[in-house]
Amino acid sequence: MKLEHIGIAVKSLGISDELFTKLLGKESYKKESVEREGVTTSFYAAGESKIELLEANKEESPVSKFIDKKGEGIHHLAFGVENITKEIERLKKEGFEFISEEPKEGADNKLIVFLHPKSTNGVLIELCQEKQ
Amino acid sequence: MKLEHIGIAVKSLGISDELFTKLLGKESYKKESVEREGVTTSFYAAGESKIELLEANKEESPVSKFIDKKGEGIHHLAFGVENITKEIERLKKEGFEFISEEPKEGADNKLIVFLHPKSTNGVLIELCQEKQ
Repeated sequence: MKLEHIGIAVKSLGISDELFTKLLGKESYKKESVEREGVTTSFYAAGESKIELLEANKEESPVSKFIDKKGEGIHHLAFGVENITKEIERLKKEGFEFISEEPKEGADNKLIVFLHPKSTNGVLIELCQEKQ
Repeated sequence: MKLEHIGIAVKSLGISDELFTKLLGKESYKKESVEREGVTTSFYAAGESKIELLEANKEESPVSKFIDKKGEGIHHLAFGVENITKEIERLKKEGFEFISEEPKEGADNKLIVFLHPKSTNGVLIELCQEKQ
């Protein structure tokens, strides 16, 4: 598994895009809304991995709830896998729990699932597979 | 800047090394104590980036304080840079604040500094440069 991206929950992409452009010395290369997740995303290249800023675009968005509870900050780590179905099976056998075991469409042309943070040291972990 | 590693604060390396070995399907390739920071670290390869588990090895360790306040979870993101002094100067001009502006020795043969999370969207960001 390689570290595919890090998701960071932000209140305002307007403010945070400016901040991360200064920090990383480069501009966001893509913005994309994911209606099902209630988020607008903004991506930055950082070597082989990416930084994904996440802004809630509706009140009941998980990102909005996350910010209410914990404030802005790192929301999840995503690991890229070749075959998400096989990887879910492997991890279930190892005792990991998933928020939902059914892969769904995420940003950036990916199929995604999230492991439950109670089984992963408090870290919200996403598995993602490039869609064929 | 490339994403060099992600630091995850854990209560027990014994428990979390087992968990991350199962999750990533591979073992930690290095353990190292950093006395000045009051931590013992354990590293996993994840593509070009690394996962660094951080266990406090004394009570006044920043990792111990972090866990008391926020629980186990992602502690910091580290970006690798070629010249840490130049990068500190560049970011100061951009208005970023540092916890300390003086690079110090970190784990994994690196010089490191931390930006203050109040200037970076609540994310604790480390810059690191391979020592010559």
